[in-house]
Amino acid sequence: MSKIPIEKNLFCLPWTQTLLGTHVQGRVNYMALDWLTRVNYNPAMLGICVNKGHASNQAIRETGEFSVNVPTVDMVEVTDYCGIVSAKRDDKSKLFEVFYGELKAAPLITACPLNIACRLIQTVDLPTNTFFIGEIVIILSEEQYLSDGKPDVTKMRPFLLTMPDNRFWSVGEHIGNAWKDGAKYREKLKI
Amino acid sequence: MSKIPIEKNLFCLPWTQTLLGTHVQGRVNYMALDWLTRVNYNPAMLGICVNKGHASNQAIRETGEFSVNVPTVDMVEVTDYCGIVSAKRDDKSKLFEVFYGELKAAPLITACPLNIACRLIQTVDLPTNTFFIGEIVIILSEEQYLSDGKPDVTKMRPFLLTMPDNRFWSVGEHIGNAWKDGAKYREKLKI
Repeated sequence: MSKIPIEKNLFCLPWTQTLLGTHVQGRVNYMALDWLTRVNYNPAMLGICVNKGHASNQAIRETGEFSVNVPTVDMVEVTDYCGIVSAKRDDKSKLFEVFYGELKAAPLITACPLNIACRLIQTVDLPTNTFFIGEIVIILSEEQYLSDGKPDVTKMRPFLLTMPDNRFWSVGEHIGNAWKDGAKYREKLKI
Repeated sequence: MSKIPIEKNLFCLPWTQTLLGTHVQGRVNYMALDWLTRVNYNPAMLGICVNKGHASNQAIRETGEFSVNVPTVDMVEVTDYCGIVSAKRDDKSKLFEVFYGELKAAPLITACPLNIACRLIQTVDLPTNTFFIGEIVIILSEEQYLSDGKPDVTKMRPFLLTMPDNRFWSVGEHIGNAWKDGAKYREKLKI
């Protein structure tokens, strides 16, 4: 073993690429969002991390609402565009057709196979970023992306980002089954 | 468009599979961890979500330390085993060879290509889960997993989990480049 220290921001874990939807001063806006996770099972909550300098950060504070939309591999360029252009300079409001559920400041992108609308319930301020915790109000998809009534990653075809090499990746092969492969391993341990 | 509502826990986003390392009453323990994200850029922080019923939850509260280890696709079975067996019933302490940095309750798994040691700085209690925010004290890897001194996902070969279909996935093809593909799109918009 020869373990070596890595600079603390050189993570290189694959994160699922999403598009954060907000209303910035009444105008629809999008931001490429990779730092997010589920944070509570019941009720279902999502936590997202937004740099304090981003227009989306102020927007969420003001409206108390946001959306998380999952683009497909066919949307790589436009998604990345949302990540490199600031709402402070460019109007991104016309990039996508959107629709709304109950939350009127959480724009849902029609072209995305999965749309999640969240109501802000807690704001955790950290030094350079804010972690916003939202309760999921609704998740929407379409029949074409489902198998047995559940979203199917092979049909949705989301993509991943690794940093700081800044590469996008598709989801690869199905290599195992959770809650099953571990049971097999447990049997082996007993032998 | 015919969007349909999806049950709020049927997410099906791919999360990178990791192994949470803690000391439970002085004994090394592991838990399969999928709900995690970066939460602050500088200083580098990681947020992890642990169900309140898990032994790891109490362990982090008691020691104020934890590790996040990234297994490879070759470790699917043993990783899943850590997710289906509770420390309250089975001793998982002998599963892996471990080493330690500065934090003596953050066991780092030698076999994992990426090891992250965190010191707890904030605890966010939610209804069924706890979101622990840790400052990254050190990240370790090995020369064989790096390209240009940075962790390379094609060499580390981490894997992903989607729920509730409970399938593990490898990382797929390199399909684009962040901060570049968006610039191309911007040029197209100008035409």
